[in-house]
Amino acid sequence: MTAYNAFYAQSGGVTPVINASAAGVIQTAVNHPDKINKVYAGQDGIIGALTENLIDTSLETAHDIEALKYTPSGAFGSCRYKLKSIEEHRAQYERLIEVFKTHNIRYFFYNGGGDSQDTSHKVSQISQTMGYPITCVGVPKTIDNDLPFTDCSPGFGSVAKYVAVSILEASMDVESMSSSSTKVFVMEVMGRHAGWIAAASGLASDERGLGPDIILFPEINFDQQAFLDKVNETVENKGFCSIVVSEGVKYADGKFLADSGVKDAFGHAQLGGVAPVVTNLIKENLQFKCHWAVCDYLQRAARHIGSKTDMEQAYALGKAAVEFAVAGENAIMPTIVRTQDSPYLWEIGKANLADVANVEEKMPADYISDDGFFITDKCRTYLSPLIQGEDYPPYQNGIPQYVRLQKNKIAKKLPPFTID
Amino acid sequence: MTAYNAFYAQSGGVTPVINASAAGVIQTAVNHPDKINKVYAGQDGIIGALTENLIDTSLETAHDIEALKYTPSGAFGSCRYKLKSIEEHRAQYERLIEVFKTHNIRYFFYNGGGDSQDTSHKVSQISQTMGYPITCVGVPKTIDNDLPFTDCSPGFGSVAKYVAVSILEASMDVESMSSSSTKVFVMEVMGRHAGWIAAASGLASDERGLGPDIILFPEINFDQQAFLDKVNETVENKGFCSIVVSEGVKYADGKFLADSGVKDAFGHAQLGGVAPVVTNLIKENLQFKCHWAVCDYLQRAARHIGSKTDMEQAYALGKAAVEFAVAGENAIMPTIVRTQDSPYLWEIGKANLADVANVEEKMPADYISDDGFFITDKCRTYLSPLIQGEDYPPYQNGIPQYVRLQKNKIAKKLPPFTID
Repeated sequence: MTAYNAFYAQSGGVTPVINASAAGVIQTAVNHPDKINKVYAGQDGIIGALTENLIDTSLETAHDIEALKYTPSGAFGSCRYKLKSIEEHRAQYERLIEVFKTHNIRYFFYNGGGDSQDTSHKVSQISQTMGYPITCVGVPKTIDNDLPFTDCSPGFGSVAKYVAVSILEASMDVESMSSSSTKVFVMEVMGRHAGWIAAASGLASDERGLGPDIILFPEINFDQQAFLDKVNETVENKGFCSIVVSEGVKYADGKFLADSGVKDAFGHAQLGGVAPVVTNLIKENLQFKCHWAVCDYLQRAARHIGSKTDMEQAYALGKAAVEFAVAGENAIMPTIVRTQDSPYLWEIGKANLADVANVEEKMPADYISDDGFFITDKCRTYLSPLIQGEDYPPYQNGIPQYVRLQKNKIAKKLPPFTID
Repeated sequence: MTAYNAFYAQSGGVTPVINASAAGVIQTAVNHPDKINKVYAGQDGIIGALTENLIDTSLETAHDIEALKYTPSGAFGSCRYKLKSIEEHRAQYERLIEVFKTHNIRYFFYNGGGDSQDTSHKVSQISQTMGYPITCVGVPKTIDNDLPFTDCSPGFGSVAKYVAVSILEASMDVESMSSSSTKVFVMEVMGRHAGWIAAASGLASDERGLGPDIILFPEINFDQQAFLDKVNETVENKGFCSIVVSEGVKYADGKFLADSGVKDAFGHAQLGGVAPVVTNLIKENLQFKCHWAVCDYLQRAARHIGSKTDMEQAYALGKAAVEFAVAGENAIMPTIVRTQDSPYLWEIGKANLADVANVEEKMPADYISDDGFFITDKCRTYLSPLIQGEDYPPYQNGIPQYVRLQKNKIAKKLPPFTID
């Protein structure tokens, strides 16, 4: 049987463990030399395929590929670029086939979230609609945890661990200071449409009163008076209040709090940041001294506090993608199937890309407490396994020794192609 | 010889390792039963002494005291409260003496920064001016790294490690996304008057082009055009730009960037946040897609990524404070004396509280590069040892097992006292 080359690329927002999936793909492909020759990684996702910017992963050292397991970010570059449908933009697909044919690529592994699996799905259709034989398997990834059919999305567990640890630490800090200084701390986390990340902060709470006291979810319309009452009550009861807010929290009229009219000196609307808006509300109405933090990229790059479970799942899914592909499966995405909550047990399953693409998994309503300000025990049972285990990177001189690949490109053989 | 009780308290902003100093004081006092009976910790700093809120540390378990070594925040509560001079507020000192006498306290250990060591110094004067025999030793602490006579201030090394690791990770993230999305990342760190923390982010930079590209220091007047030129040049050269900004960055006229007119929907000046201000400048002038983060308390509570060197120094200084005290030293503060850069060697020294109080150690001018946007090699040589070594807390269910003490108060014997 002839072996063909494989294309692998990273897409959408990066995560602390997307490179672990890359390691899973690359290291597993090496074990199937009868089917897969080389793995070419796209520089900046699917754009790398379109522009023939292909990185020869076989030229990286074994050490560096192994080091991807503990290196955050997208080692090959990622992109925010969605393929149009074949009907809308046939030239793009013809270009992909041209590149694949030229470089003998017959396996396509695309590592991304819902939008990216839409791209995987479209590429998988090439075999049928355009007659080019390609085996296409998606590799799930997204810190948003909104992919369907999988227990969780790789990347989420590590972000969840980061926000839980961070709010635990910050809540202890504000408690220390609360007698004569700061009474309220507000931490903003990602989550434009779903409150999964905010919910994970609740894992820091325990019977000792640490962790977040209030969580604001995008799923719950912001009720300013109820919120202020809750903050006031919390400060009165325990002396301080620790708050986690999703960037996507909205008023009942659908307007984001982050867009609520904050202007700079020139009268221009200011860039995002819901934490300062919430903080100002508290300051103006309750006159408490407040502090606020915005985690932004720190939360999704924080491999130093990555979840071991998350890393293992990310690797296993990359590995499974290759194993499915060499077994002849096409147009699927490996998934995580939970078989037990505690201790957490999971195995690899699969879903059809056609069903996965563009479907957003919402947080169940019964994961949020009745008052809308916290998570339920059911939510905790679901989330807790995902942050378990530590998996520290190696350090030198106090700094993590994350790898930066050589990224040797193969020689281009085709004329340039313009991305639009 | 009769043994007396000791008073220990935490003051000012807390740090990831101030509790390690507490452990050093408490565990070392136990080794000197001939001199020190019990260690009473003040609830919320000196306020605990004034209000007779004294925690009997001997009732905590040995495990919990040991766990202070890896627990962030101030386990006994801290305060932002500065004693007035004896001339101005004699009643306060009379009250302190009354409390000390009532509870047989003749040792005073105060764990804090410059303002707090001013309090230590004032208390140390009680022996001479008011005839009460108390041995007073300061225990240094501050993430600001601005205490004089010591190689560094405990707490700073861990914050330095956090910001270096965080900007390393975030810079890798933005690089991954830069081809089709975010080009600039801005991270705000603490440092109202001195750029020590911002400078530490430079430790993440290496020959591979990761880490911060630009650091904005409070020591350097903000030159908007030079800054924007530098950002533009960096994005043109490497495709992305990673920036660390001190909260205290000012224009030449002394106005903080963070106060530059950002108003909310109601026209009220918005709470701090220099990162969004800098981001807006870039967005409006250079039209790059930007992201920004504000670390705030996360940086100074992040014991999960604490520096081992910092933790060891914090513990050693608490231990040394007790050893100096039982050896009869008064009105001093133990210090860190660097004897070698690489490998880092240090020993314990001492300074007089009279010389330490209210003196702010500035960052040397030759620690900042000529263009004002980065650190020099000399700065790196100084800073690098301080972040070395990892000292992870134990975890359970994915969450650090930080200790929360029982804090049993001793019975009050005096009438209440009002703090003003």
